[in-house]
Amino acid sequence: MAVAEFIPSSSSSLTKRASFYSSQLSYVSTQISYQRRLSVRPLPRTHYSQICCSVSSKEAQVPTVVQTDDPKKKTECYGVFCLTYDLKAEEETCSWKKMINVAVSGAAGMISNHLLFKLASGEVFGPDQPIALRLLGSDRSIQALEGVAMELEDSLYPLLREVNIGTDPYEVFQDAEWALLIGAKPRGPGMERSALLDINGQIFAEQFVSAAGLVFLKGKALNAVASRNVKVIVVGNPCNTNALICLKNAPNIPAKNFHALTRLDENRAKCQLALKAGVFYDKVSNVTIWGNHSTTQVPDFLNAKINGLRVKEVIKDTKWLEEEFTEKVQKRGGALIQKWGRSSAASTAVSIVDAIRSLVTPTPEGDWFSTGVYTSGNPYGIAEDIVFSMPCRSKGDGDYELVKEIIFDDYLWSRIKKSEDELLAEKRCVAHLTGEGIAVCDLPGDTMLPGEM
Amino acid sequence: MAVAEFIPSSSSSLTKRASFYSSQLSYVSTQISYQRRLSVRPLPRTHYSQICCSVSSKEAQVPTVVQTDDPKKKTECYGVFCLTYDLKAEEETCSWKKMINVAVSGAAGMISNHLLFKLASGEVFGPDQPIALRLLGSDRSIQALEGVAMELEDSLYPLLREVNIGTDPYEVFQDAEWALLIGAKPRGPGMERSALLDINGQIFAEQFVSAAGLVFLKGKALNAVASRNVKVIVVGNPCNTNALICLKNAPNIPAKNFHALTRLDENRAKCQLALKAGVFYDKVSNVTIWGNHSTTQVPDFLNAKINGLRVKEVIKDTKWLEEEFTEKVQKRGGALIQKWGRSSAASTAVSIVDAIRSLVTPTPEGDWFSTGVYTSGNPYGIAEDIVFSMPCRSKGDGDYELVKEIIFDDYLWSRIKKSEDELLAEKRCVAHLTGEGIAVCDLPGDTMLPGEM
Repeated sequence: MAVAEFIPSSSSSLTKRASFYSSQLSYVSTQISYQRRLSVRPLPRTHYSQICCSVSSKEAQVPTVVQTDDPKKKTECYGVFCLTYDLKAEEETCSWKKMINVAVSGAAGMISNHLLFKLASGEVFGPDQPIALRLLGSDRSIQALEGVAMELEDSLYPLLREVNIGTDPYEVFQDAEWALLIGAKPRGPGMERSALLDINGQIFAEQFVSAAGLVFLKGKALNAVASRNVKVIVVGNPCNTNALICLKNAPNIPAKNFHALTRLDENRAKCQLALKAGVFYDKVSNVTIWGNHSTTQVPDFLNAKINGLRVKEVIKDTKWLEEEFTEKVQKRGGALIQKWGRSSAASTAVSIVDAIRSLVTPTPEGDWFSTGVYTSGNPYGIAEDIVFSMPCRSKGDGDYELVKEIIFDDYLWSRIKKSEDELLAEKRCVAHLTGEGIAVCDLPGDTMLPGEM
Repeated sequence: MAVAEFIPSSSSSLTKRASFYSSQLSYVSTQISYQRRLSVRPLPRTHYSQICCSVSSKEAQVPTVVQTDDPKKKTECYGVFCLTYDLKAEEETCSWKKMINVAVSGAAGMISNHLLFKLASGEVFGPDQPIALRLLGSDRSIQALEGVAMELEDSLYPLLREVNIGTDPYEVFQDAEWALLIGAKPRGPGMERSALLDINGQIFAEQFVSAAGLVFLKGKALNAVASRNVKVIVVGNPCNTNALICLKNAPNIPAKNFHALTRLDENRAKCQLALKAGVFYDKVSNVTIWGNHSTTQVPDFLNAKINGLRVKEVIKDTKWLEEEFTEKVQKRGGALIQKWGRSSAASTAVSIVDAIRSLVTPTPEGDWFSTGVYTSGNPYGIAEDIVFSMPCRSKGDGDYELVKEIIFDDYLWSRIKKSEDELLAEKRCVAHLTGEGIAVCDLPGDTMLPGEM
């Protein structure tokens, strides 16, 4: 067991101690130049909130917001998307809806490379929904982001009306109505799980907090500049706790609007149930992923249905359900890396599309979908104040409600509690990032799903 | 100038000299096993048709069809797609169309990784068109192909009803109604054009013939087992001449059904005209790519329109049109590799989608699209019996007709003739593969577009 203790100086001081400086960094390219006016970066080491890690003498770096002279400066538009055009006229002649701003972080990665083209094609928000893409990259990926923008140009998607790219979340997230936080590069071949993790969990704990630190800044940026009703889907791991950090740092945005992606797990669970039952996957419904997007997640076969019947009435092999099913769902990503040599970028992107569509189209009668949401007043008795994947329904207005008609048995409930325990431990581990004081990191070890980063 | 002369033993003997043998190659995997009964491979060297290359002492290998004991054996279905289900019932309850078989070669590559998910989503053939994907890989890529099939499973696309994977085109192309020949792995970073080509063109000529040989076998397989009205889109380079070889080896399929993809060039040309004119790309129409998908291609600004006006009335900068425009279109792929570090897989896939949709949906009134097609009775005076990109219209029935109301000037015509010359030279270079006797390879050098392979 790895134990790491973090002692921040003061949670609220993180936001107050903003210091002002000006940074101008220009990227020379044929078409665009970048200017960063509002930037986030760690303060010099003496300015960090104090963090001590009992398993490491190294102090973790806590990122701090640094503001500059002109907070209104936006990131730059790209190429053909900088052209002025009369969208009003389009809206009238094509009966198009008002354009929406969709921000995507990790936009130069492989998941985004699939997702952005789906967003631009109208597949996600519909054929009458013009869209502006606001793409967040890093200094390292900004060139690649230009390449992505070029390919979007060459795709001539009529609905794609604006593409902005940048490295500063305070610029890129401006007025965002959706924020898809994809996170870092997925693990590839030669970058397997064992290579990333120290056996005693120490490196894991450090990595966990460090990954979480990135989303802390994004939460602050969303709080400052995004639409007041922005919907946020966190994909970057640890996605549940990342979503919690994000929402805690964005108090001006409803906590209900933050999601952790567990839809790929749901899709994989449906596929495995279909395979076992010998039916096509469209016959499987009411599948819930409970809990954390980790190996403690609980794919629920108690409430799931096949052809409208409870799974247990169709699949009599209880041993398979209890002992193999969950593992099959969880090992899918690792198996895929072995076969294909890459992470499951395409199907992850598909599941993000599914997650968004589940919020913008009415849920089919009697069915539901899984998403990791804030446990505030949940009817199941799950601990409050964490982000937990649960069964939801939507009227298609971007909002959702929790499903009430759920049954539990001891087996299901004991596993849900285990995932709850883990998320409570993760929460203690990032207390310095959620504004809840002293962080104590007693994570029982790595529970990251195989094939993910 | 590289000169290579090929002397085949006899063109028709290539098909006659089929020898029978049995090959059983099993891939052990958790879910599927592959059996190859009908296989294509080069005969032992003494059985080759004689080919002499005046620039190389090495004899080129001409692939020959080798048939085995059970030509009816199909490739294996994958995972959940092996399940029996009542598609008839779906057709009745969902008013779905009859399922179509779409074969894709190079299915484990990056272009396909984008394309397959678009095909499965209904974006290409419509939301009422169930689809069976038949994926062709190589021995080297068959594992990756399993990974692709797994991701397709996990995507739960309702319209995707069958996925078959295999390495034998005689199995995979069975009953195909569309065949998308994507070809080999695109060139990546560190595998730039200069590294692939010998300065004197000798290696280029060899590579050219060798790349063309792969499609020769696919043509034979399509002729043997595909639907009699299969539509074929060749993406793998040299795509025009590959399409010619393919159709020459598939005499039972109408030559009109074979296409070489020039749609990405058209899309890029539209984008560059939009950028120059300061309009959004949806205002640009009637853009033709004439000729070869190579640096001799001719993006036509004489007939193209912006906001319904001829381009020359909108863009007065003739110097830019004549000297920079074409280069901007052609250098796009190379620029993208530099920025993004990879070939333009996503936008190529988008352009394949565009190419298919242009054939299955009626062309908008007054507009047209470009595709490389067989020049049989063309109204422009372009040499017959090659595959040349020209302006086409479709009623949406999968067929097309050439556009008649085209104007030419000396500048346009002289450039078209140059591309025609090149395609005639390419044709002479593969005469042994089209059944036209002695091949003489006097290609003037590499004209492959930057960023392609």
